[in-house]
This record gives sequence, structure tokens and C-alpha cells, in this order.
Amino acid sequence: MQAILLTIGDEILIGQIVDTNSAWMATQLNLQGIKVREIVSLSDEHEAITEGVKSALDRADLVLITGGLGPTKDDITKKTLAEFFEVDLVFHEPTWERILGFFKKFGRSTTPAHKEQCFMPANAEILTNKMGTAPGMWMEKNGKVVVSMPGVPYEMKYLMTNEVLPKVKAFFPSKPIAHRTILTVGEGESRIAAMIEDFESQLPENIKLAYLPGLGIVRLRLSATGDNADELDRILDAKVAELNQLLPHLIFGYGNEQLAEVVGRMLVESGKTIGTAESCTGGYIAHKITAIPGASRYFQGSIVAYSNELKIKQLGVNEKTLEKYGAVSENTVTEMVAGALKSLDVGLAVAVSGIAGPGGGTPEKPVGTTWLAVGDGKRIKTRRFLLGKDRLKNIEYTGNQALNMIRKFLLEG
Amino acid sequence: MQAILLTIGDEILIGQIVDTNSAWMATQLNLQGIKVREIVSLSDEHEAITEGVKSALDRADLVLITGGLGPTKDDITKKTLAEFFEVDLVFHEPTWERILGFFKKFGRSTTPAHKEQCFMPANAEILTNKMGTAPGMWMEKNGKVVVSMPGVPYEMKYLMTNEVLPKVKAFFPSKPIAHRTILTVGEGESRIAAMIEDFESQLPENIKLAYLPGLGIVRLRLSATGDNADELDRILDAKVAELNQLLPHLIFGYGNEQLAEVVGRMLVESGKTIGTAESCTGGYIAHKITAIPGASRYFQGSIVAYSNELKIKQLGVNEKTLEKYGAVSENTVTEMVAGALKSLDVGLAVAVSGIAGPGGGTPEKPVGTTWLAVGDGKRIKTRRFLLGKDRLKNIEYTGNQALNMIRKFLLEG
Repeated sequence: MQAILLTIGDEILIGQIVDTNSAWMATQLNLQGIKVREIVSLSDEHEAITEGVKSALDRADLVLITGGLGPTKDDITKKTLAEFFEVDLVFHEPTWERILGFFKKFGRSTTPAHKEQCFMPANAEILTNKMGTAPGMWMEKNGKVVVSMPGVPYEMKYLMTNEVLPKVKAFFPSKPIAHRTILTVGEGESRIAAMIEDFESQLPENIKLAYLPGLGIVRLRLSATGDNADELDRILDAKVAELNQLLPHLIFGYGNEQLAEVVGRMLVESGKTIGTAESCTGGYIAHKITAIPGASRYFQGSIVAYSNELKIKQLGVNEKTLEKYGAVSENTVTEMVAGALKSLDVGLAVAVSGIAGPGGGTPEKPVGTTWLAVGDGKRIKTRRFLLGKDRLKNIEYTGNQALNMIRKFLLEG
Repeated sequence: MQAILLTIGDEILIGQIVDTNSAWMATQLNLQGIKVREIVSLSDEHEAITEGVKSALDRADLVLITGGLGPTKDDITKKTLAEFFEVDLVFHEPTWERILGFFKKFGRSTTPAHKEQCFMPANAEILTNKMGTAPGMWMEKNGKVVVSMPGVPYEMKYLMTNEVLPKVKAFFPSKPIAHRTILTVGEGESRIAAMIEDFESQLPENIKLAYLPGLGIVRLRLSATGDNADELDRILDAKVAELNQLLPHLIFGYGNEQLAEVVGRMLVESGKTIGTAESCTGGYIAHKITAIPGASRYFQGSIVAYSNELKIKQLGVNEKTLEKYGAVSENTVTEMVAGALKSLDVGLAVAVSGIAGPGGGTPEKPVGTTWLAVGDGKRIKTRRFLLGKDRLKNIEYTGNQALNMIRKFLLEG
């Protein structure tokens, strides 16, 4: 059972947009045990689409097409599919009523192009798209399936989740498959691999482990296949419990959770408020924290002190500390934490000072040298990181490490 | 003259990574007037690669392959290509010496797998990769070309820029082509299209205009083909001058410039320092400014005041202003600017307060209501935006608008 994904649209072929739909769709199909054999981006041209669909159907059981369904003249997927399947386009009344209702609600009027959108290949089962005007289409031929969806990401995701994946599951019955994603922070891929070497080598044949590394964050995915879904859930839960033993303090969450979300939940539970005192990250840690809805329950504010003057004035860092140890030092970040606790009236503060690069390094403190501190006025934890020369990567990595230090501080507290 | 891009690697087919290489490569090829006919992601399997290369060579003049050249056992592209071209793999001494030098420099030792990396298809011209161990390969057959490069983005970009694109230009001589990218901020795509409707309809046949929209930023790309490169440059420069007349104040830069970079340069020129006072953007404006190398020349710091208490304490906002007009109001952001100028000792300050969503709206102030202000103590400019319900999009859009308000303030000053 294999799938091929076709993405239709010249905007991808001219490099105007990056195709992020395919990676999302591939992930969803893999979670159902369906292998994606190929991902192909095609032009908005009749011949290219016909050739692409034909070639895909020759080699796969399931062909998922996105793009080319909008009301503009470039979008010819639907006509091409009707010709390919040798069927007429017929008017689909329920879609027209849905579009009318949609436009009425927003007080806008339809155009002739919207009526065009309601003509569908006669062999297509119509998949209702509650997120936009163009519906999805499910077409079968010789035990194989072609699905066409709009290319707008949230419309495609709605149709995949609510219509396509359940129908695929029913049409291509397969062995039960189950997954767990375990989220770690604080160690790299190779160090984690060494820590769970025995665990990995002793996994039974039907359980696979994949490493999905990021900047400071490594996700582990366990996938199991078998005959009994309940049994798979039981085995995977036991394996996750084993990983929790083997990787103490490294696991911060599961599934699609974000580190800032987990830290936010811990702050709500602890009843503590938080603020940041940032130099080299320039507000990025505060941004990560406030990107989570509801952050105002625990986040009070930040002082970004890029200049030494502001470190002294706003955070009460001692001028002599800056002179003696420099802005990038354990002493400075320790004083920044104390200053932030006071200036921001918070229960917990995180401070960072470093050389983000690409310039600004010295022999003793090369680019990438970064000091972090977390404290609550009673306890303080500090840590130095030696990072690379890429400014944006350093900022991102430091942001994740700062959140992790808050997490560990709360765990120990 | 058409090209097909092949990306090799299971990590794309399982959705683990998004293929960003292809969009970059497609942009570069389009800039040289080469049309990308298809982009295909393939599995790390012998049969898939053979079939993919064969099918691509049947339909295109140029096939660019990325991925599958690393020292691990999954990477079989090279062996498959040698078989496809019916040639042996031969040891390439200069590559071995380069790898040895590379490892010596970092004090590490090579493994047998690195020696394997030096065996190359006998028909390949070797393209030196100064960014990594695996070289690129240029192979010709019946007037067509197959190029293989590593999948690591910065290695691929180095090889494309320094080796592949110049060789492609020489191998497939084509009519001169020239481009200009004009960067605008402050109006949407449809409003800009209306403003330059006549300009667009009067463009000669050989000049094309494309719109590349983003969050608050719209890029316009002019592409011209002809017989004389100097003449194309002259015509395009004249067209850019016309756009400058038609879109006064909307154009902030050209090419690959970033808005924060342009604003930074204007700040350096004006000799003014800057700081931010942020509520709903939670440090994101400061992050955008400090993401630019050298920002410490003009950026002093920020106060992120999420809570009303901090707006009062750190920014001197009057408690009565907050009571009477609310935190999301013109009065509050005006006082935040005054407070930031004083607290941060800066010549210019930008302030923002809004409801980023998805929750927190009221009938009078729905989610997305956002007030921005920029001032220097003598002049102040304020503006209200009514945005959507997507928290991250609102933060990103507000960040771009804040930078644009700084830009316009400096232009008028």
C-alpha cells in the first residue's frame, strides 16, 4: 500500500513558495502505516497534470493531489481530472448552496467564477470543505483512489483530518498501527542514542524508533504495528515508561506539545510569575513565552538590556562587575536575575548574556559564548554554553535552553 | 530549455523535514531564464533513483539532484548514478587530499567511510565543495546534463552559486535575462495592483511582473528578456524609477534586503538610538531588530510590559489612563513611548499594545485590535490596526508594521 503526493501550482516551480503541505500529509499518512513513495510538484498545465496523475496511478494505490482548485483561470485541475476519468462535469447543487451561505454570512456577492467551482467530475464523491469554497473530491478507479484537495494549508488539513484519512482507513484496511512521540530537551541526538542503546537494540521487530532532531530539542518517535490495537497501546505505554527511566529530566512532553507551553503549565501550577532579562537574545525568550495563548497568566514582562548602561540602570548590575568580569559572565547574569526579580516584580527570572555573532568575539570569549541563569531570590542556577557562529541559530538554541532551565528549576523547586 | 529537480531522501517522504532546497534552486534557475518543469522527492532506494533520473532525463535538458551523498550506508546516489551511466567508480585523489586537510584542521580522524566518499563515477567532472566533504558531480549525456549535490542546504547553495550556475550558463547559452525585486511594506497586494494598474498593462511583452505577498510585506519582481544585457538593465532601472513614483513611501528596499536591516541602516545614518516598549508583541519587535548583526550600534534595549503594573512602574503610564481608556488605546501607547524614551535613554521609541488573540477580545475591542506609536519626544505618530484572530500572524504582522512606522518616522524627520 503506497501513496504518491502531487502538488499542482507554478508558484512552487518558480520558487515563490515552499511546499509545506506535502511534509504534513506525509507525516499523517505514515502515522496510518501508508508509505509515501514520491512527492511531485507539477505545473498548472493540462498535459503536466494528466501525465503526472497517470504516472502516479501506475505506481501507487493512493494519489493525493493538492492545488489547482481555486476560482481563477489558472486552476484547471478539475477539468483535467474529468477528462482523465472520461466523465462530464456536473453541477453540484449542495456546494452552490454552501458557497451562497458562506458569502451571505460575510455580506459579499458571488461571481460567475464561483458557479464554475460547483461543476464536479461526475465520478467524484464530494468532500465538504467547511474552511473554504472549493470542495475536495474522492475518485476511484480499478481499486485505486485519486483525491483532489485545495492547496490552502488550513483547508487541506481540515479535509485530510475530517474526510480523507477516515475514508482511506476504511478503503485500504491495514494492520493496526500506533505511535508515541516523546519530546526531549538538553542533550543532542548522539548522546541520547548512547543513553538508550540497549533499549533500542532490544526493541521487538514490530516497534521502530526514529530520531527527529532540532535546535536543542530532540523528538523520539516510537511506531508499532500488530494485530491488536489495545495491545499496541499497552506495549507502547510500557516503552514510554522505560524511556522515562532511561532519560531522567530530559523528557519534557509528548506529541505536539511545545516547550514554552509545558513551562507555562508548570508556572500556572506553581503559582509563580516570570520575567526575563535578556541581552544577546534581544527579546526572543520573552517572544517564545508570549507566543503561547494565555501567557498573561504567568508572564509579567521583560527587560532587554543590550547596552551596559541599561544593565546598570534597569537591572541594577554593578558597574564593577561589568568592568571586572565583562557583560558575558556568570557574575553578570547572576546580578541580572536579581535585578529582574526586583524590577519586574516576579517570582522567577531568567537572564542571558552572550555573543550571538557573527562578530564580537575575543580569544577568551569566542562568538557563541553564552551565560544563562535562572533564580527566584533564594536559589540560582547558572550555566555556560559554547555555541557556533550562526546568529539566528544561537538565538533559537539559547531560547530553548532558557526554557529548559526554567523547567528544571521548577522541577527541583 | 527545461529543468527537473530531484530530491533524494526518505526523511522528506516521511515528513520529517520540509524540502526548502528546491524552492531556492527553482528561484535561482528562474533568474537565469530556466524553467523548472517538475520537482520530485524520491526514496533512498536504487530502483527509485534509477527510475527517477531516467524519467527526468527523458523530459528535461537539465536534472539537478540533491541528497544521498553522505558517508552513511543509506546514501547510495553515487553508486546508482555510476550504474545508470554504465561507468566505474574511480578514486579521486584531490578529493581525498581535501578531506584529509579538512579533518587535520579540526584535529579529527577520518573513517573508512570517508575514503568511500572519494570514489566517483568515471564520467563525472568533480565540483569542489568547500563547505563539506562530499563533492558535487557534473555528468553529460547526449547534450543533456545531470548534476548531483549534497542535500545540506549551505553546501548545496555554495555549489550552485560557485560551480553549477556558471557552468549551466555556459553549457546552455540563452538570451540575456535581468531581474529587479522591489520590496514594499504597508499595503496589501490588491491595493498595490490598483495603484500600478496602468504601469502593469503598459509593460512591453518582454517584461513580466510578479507579486510575492507576505504578512504586511509585498515583493514585486520585474523580469526582462532580450538580446542586449546592458539594454535590459537600462529598461529595468527606468521601470523601477517609475514604480518609485507610483508607490511613494511604500518601497523600502530591493533584492534580498530585510526591513529590519534597512531600518537599522537608517538609524545608523541618523545617529539615533532606539528602544521598544511592547505589550502584545511580547519582545518580538526587539527580536526582529536584534536579529540583524551589528544591531548593538543603534538598539539599546526594551521593556516588555505585559501586565498593567509594569506599564505603570517601568514605563510611567498613568494609572488613570489605563482605567479610562484601557491598555489597548492611543493614550496608553503614547504614554508608553514617553516612558520608553526616558527609561531606556533612547532617541526614538516604538510602543505597541493590542489583543493578539485568540482570546481576550470584547465587543468594542475585538481580538486583533492593535495600537502602535513611534516618537522621539518632539513628534509622535500613532496608528490603529484591526487584525485577525491568529496570534502568531498578528504578532508577525505587527512586527513588520512597527518597523515600517519607524522607517516612515525617520523619512519624515
